[in-house]
Amino acid sequence: MQHHSHPHKEEHLTSSQFITDVVIGMSDGLTVPFALSAGLSGAVASTNIVTTAGIAEIVAGSIAMGLGGYLAGKTEQEHYAAELKREYWEVEHLPEREKAEIREIFAEWGLSPHSQELVVEELAKDKDKWVDFMMRYELGLEKPDVNRARKSALTIGLSYAIGGIIPLTPYFFAQDALHGLMYSCAVTLLCLFAFGYFKSKMTGQPPVWGAVKVTLIGTLAAAAAFAVAHFIE
Amino acid sequence: MQHHSHPHKEEHLTSSQFITDVVIGMSDGLTVPFALSAGLSGAVASTNIVTTAGIAEIVAGSIAMGLGGYLAGKTEQEHYAAELKREYWEVEHLPEREKAEIREIFAEWGLSPHSQELVVEELAKDKDKWVDFMMRYELGLEKPDVNRARKSALTIGLSYAIGGIIPLTPYFFAQDALHGLMYSCAVTLLCLFAFGYFKSKMTGQPPVWGAVKVTLIGTLAAAAAFAVAHFIE
Repeated sequence: MQHHSHPHKEEHLTSSQFITDVVIGMSDGLTVPFALSAGLSGAVASTNIVTTAGIAEIVAGSIAMGLGGYLAGKTEQEHYAAELKREYWEVEHLPEREKAEIREIFAEWGLSPHSQELVVEELAKDKDKWVDFMMRYELGLEKPDVNRARKSALTIGLSYAIGGIIPLTPYFFAQDALHGLMYSCAVTLLCLFAFGYFKSKMTGQPPVWGAVKVTLIGTLAAAAAFAVAHFIE
Repeated sequence: MQHHSHPHKEEHLTSSQFITDVVIGMSDGLTVPFALSAGLSGAVASTNIVTTAGIAEIVAGSIAMGLGGYLAGKTEQEHYAAELKREYWEVEHLPEREKAEIREIFAEWGLSPHSQELVVEELAKDKDKWVDFMMRYELGLEKPDVNRARKSALTIGLSYAIGGIIPLTPYFFAQDALHGLMYSCAVTLLCLFAFGYFKSKMTGQPPVWGAVKVTLIGTLAAAAAFAVAHFIE
């Protein structure tokens, strides 16, 4: 997939699609079930209800996110295939219009009419390269990985579930919901901090600031859910 | 933002960032609180617990998704600014290496060495255009909209909340959780179908098939949450 080597590019690629999917699933998995169970702890005393709601949420969330990821990947593939077909048709049947489009792109870059002409003619010699150029530089579409949709679904769904089990676990052992909440906060905020740190490292962001941001979102969501549930109950 | 007109491009742009954000927020908002409340209905009889849990989930989910969207937008901006600075530095201090990189890109397209040379020299005349070229075609980065992060956060968060209130509303009026579930299913599956139809239309996918897929995800998530919660309670 990587066509030209370059020091930046290499760095960007360390955050692979797998890591991205784990991050997507886990950041929501750690946050939403944590905040939901915190919210319920502010309204009911029984840990039983908190764990039941928590597990229902994890099941719902991992299916919604996992299948959501799967369908998004599928749609991306279908979209690419449809556009590819259309570009081949256009290159075949409306070559002059397509050439004019390439010239426009080159004109934007500041190329002289002479160079525009030269480049267009060379590019148009090979139809596959021509279409590839139109796909990438005119439509901004990269060829999606065929297995990506299925892998993505599994990774996002599982990461959500793993992330969600962490804040829920203390409630299984605590004597009441408020004690569960206390331990859940301790464990989850620690995990959110570590997760935020790791995630920021992977994407080349300042890690401590990234960790603080992720932890703050979780805290805010949990505090708000607790306050609202406590108020309405 | 649109540099060259083209019939495809126009079509793609109808699904604007705002619509994308509404879709992101609402598809999860309709699905997860729906499935969570369905799950709880399988385990507890009181609609009170279902609505409390549902509201806690909506608060948690909209904050997590909204702030998540905000931070993702911010990170994208910081990333762009950092890469832009680096490219300017490289164009200034390592022009020959940067030129070689452009030549490599052109070589991939099948341009002759003569045209490569010509194009590189013309491109390198204007430093801003040169850097813009490197940003877009070497790194694949588009300049992010400065206000996007804030708008995105609000839109995603609100869409999640609006989506989530729909499946929850019937439980406020129903005599018990199972009756609530019945009405919630009717209302939500209808909304999911309409939402899926609309979303697929906007993104140029087959609308009925898109509507069926979205509705199926919601049904599956709700059925699984119901089964699991019923089993563990």
